[in-house]
Amino acid sequence: MTEKILLAHGDGGKLTHDLVDSIFAKHFYSSDQVLPDAFVADNEEGRIAFTTDTFVVNPLFFKGGDIGKIAIAGTVNDLAVVGAIPKYISCGFIIEEGFSIADLEKIVVSMAKTANEAQVKIVTGDTKVVEKNKGDGVFINTSGIGFIPLQSQLSYRNIAVGDAVLINGNIGEHGMAIMSERSGLNFSSPVQSDCQALNLFIKKLMEHVPDVRFMRDPTRGGIATTLKEIAVDTRLNIIIDEESLPVSDELMGAADLLGLDPLYLANEGKVLVFVPEHQVELALEIMRSMPEGIGSTQIAKVEEGNGQVFLQTAFGGKKIIDLLAGAPLPRIC
Amino acid sequence: MTEKILLAHGDGGKLTHDLVDSIFAKHFYSSDQVLPDAFVADNEEGRIAFTTDTFVVNPLFFKGGDIGKIAIAGTVNDLAVVGAIPKYISCGFIIEEGFSIADLEKIVVSMAKTANEAQVKIVTGDTKVVEKNKGDGVFINTSGIGFIPLQSQLSYRNIAVGDAVLINGNIGEHGMAIMSERSGLNFSSPVQSDCQALNLFIKKLMEHVPDVRFMRDPTRGGIATTLKEIAVDTRLNIIIDEESLPVSDELMGAADLLGLDPLYLANEGKVLVFVPEHQVELALEIMRSMPEGIGSTQIAKVEEGNGQVFLQTAFGGKKIIDLLAGAPLPRIC
Repeated sequence: MTEKILLAHGDGGKLTHDLVDSIFAKHFYSSDQVLPDAFVADNEEGRIAFTTDTFVVNPLFFKGGDIGKIAIAGTVNDLAVVGAIPKYISCGFIIEEGFSIADLEKIVVSMAKTANEAQVKIVTGDTKVVEKNKGDGVFINTSGIGFIPLQSQLSYRNIAVGDAVLINGNIGEHGMAIMSERSGLNFSSPVQSDCQALNLFIKKLMEHVPDVRFMRDPTRGGIATTLKEIAVDTRLNIIIDEESLPVSDELMGAADLLGLDPLYLANEGKVLVFVPEHQVELALEIMRSMPEGIGSTQIAKVEEGNGQVFLQTAFGGKKIIDLLAGAPLPRIC
Repeated sequence: MTEKILLAHGDGGKLTHDLVDSIFAKHFYSSDQVLPDAFVADNEEGRIAFTTDTFVVNPLFFKGGDIGKIAIAGTVNDLAVVGAIPKYISCGFIIEEGFSIADLEKIVVSMAKTANEAQVKIVTGDTKVVEKNKGDGVFINTSGIGFIPLQSQLSYRNIAVGDAVLINGNIGEHGMAIMSERSGLNFSSPVQSDCQALNLFIKKLMEHVPDVRFMRDPTRGGIATTLKEIAVDTRLNIIIDEESLPVSDELMGAADLLGLDPLYLANEGKVLVFVPEHQVELALEIMRSMPEGIGSTQIAKVEEGNGQVFLQTAFGGKKIIDLLAGAPLPRIC
């Protein structure tokens, strides 16, 4: 392990995992536990879900969203994918001296709008200001509380051989929208971020498809990273069917130009849904009936194995998919 | 209102209030509500308290503590003063590229130690890294959940004419410890930060003195700012007795040298306790029986009025105490 923080420590890949394991989990947890994205507590008053996320996205405004929208949607989604109904959101701002108040207001308006649409309340907050060049515009932390219906039993432990992996539409769009802005490229059909709150979508899906095994939102590190994490946790293999991956032509073109792999690009409005094979058709029907899921499709299946992810290519080959190491895409969210 | 964020927007004084009112409260709340430091929700599963705070203290290490200790203690205290038993803490890190991993580990160890001592669990977290000169070492957000016993009824609405205001020891020590480090002054007896978790102290106080009306931790902006906020909320006057203020000789000397007023200096291990007059002796006895409260004393009383705070000086004069405007002490917590 290196002695200094590198940008890659924040990219959601191997170095991020090493940092969490060797520093945070080491001191906050006993050795057999991991730091969860969202915390679920059993207590006498019911099951509470609690999550936190800090947003340092650059640029602050991008096609399809802004840091405010992503700060609410991201935390709402972290709660929704563990089966919680998100309810209360906190926000902590770190603002750089000299930042435009008009821009701050645009961001706050976007947060309020996103929260309203997702039917969550922003209930507590904190503001700090740092000197010029000690921050970068604005950073936002949001934490959230949600409540998990007692009958909900989502867990990666439910995932079984033969299960299908569904997604609710095109992949990689948030990551590509950010990278396009940053590279200064003007594509004729620019890729828009998919940034959106998914809790109402997920709620309806859960109501109609009670056998959903597990869900996860493939944000930093993209589908590849999220599926690899799940494969490791379950000690099963996940086989992605390359031909089935929903990728827009615009994204494919931009990804080729920038040398980026859509499998590793962040999504901010997508959810990976694990369902038993016999409920695939039902789940896809429900998902496609909502605007957030028009492009829903199956992209992978679960097989016996030892925690590996493979990409079954269009040409019949099989490629190992692993965590990224040392290819930082910093500040994507 | 200015068009740009100034350092003073983060100092907890007038500009911070203006910013919160004109930007955050405006969009997150209906007009008659304010942004609370800790949120309390009545729901069918009991009363939950939820708070958030972001820490950007500079320097990261100071006499009596570090950013990790303050990040846990600060959020624990925000929950404790609303009568909650703090239980779950989240942490979100923004780390600057190039930051020393050894220092990060020291901070994390300090967080774990403080959490253990305060009997709270760090249950979820997030890590982001920003480029060199786009952050400053490390910033930490902590959010917290606590549970409020149903019989607890703390509220500023309980405060009545004749109530006493108690504090658990010397004032201004966190602010002075930070300012001394920053000014590079080496005092022969340096002031240590009072940074500490107060939840167990407050729990015992509440058990023995059930008539406690209200509590608040006088952090950013010091005792003056906190009492002014309470006076405005209650529309009563609060009269501080200057001679009764517990200020150490070391702090007084340093404050004179640096031109700082101890009333406005931040505390991170102090609580202002409002009690009816007939329970003052009992409350002080309980408070003084614990290490966090050895120096407990009465410093003010509540009178009829219209939301003003006065300092009754040693010479018989009466000075109006108001929110600070334009004297930024940024990044104190």
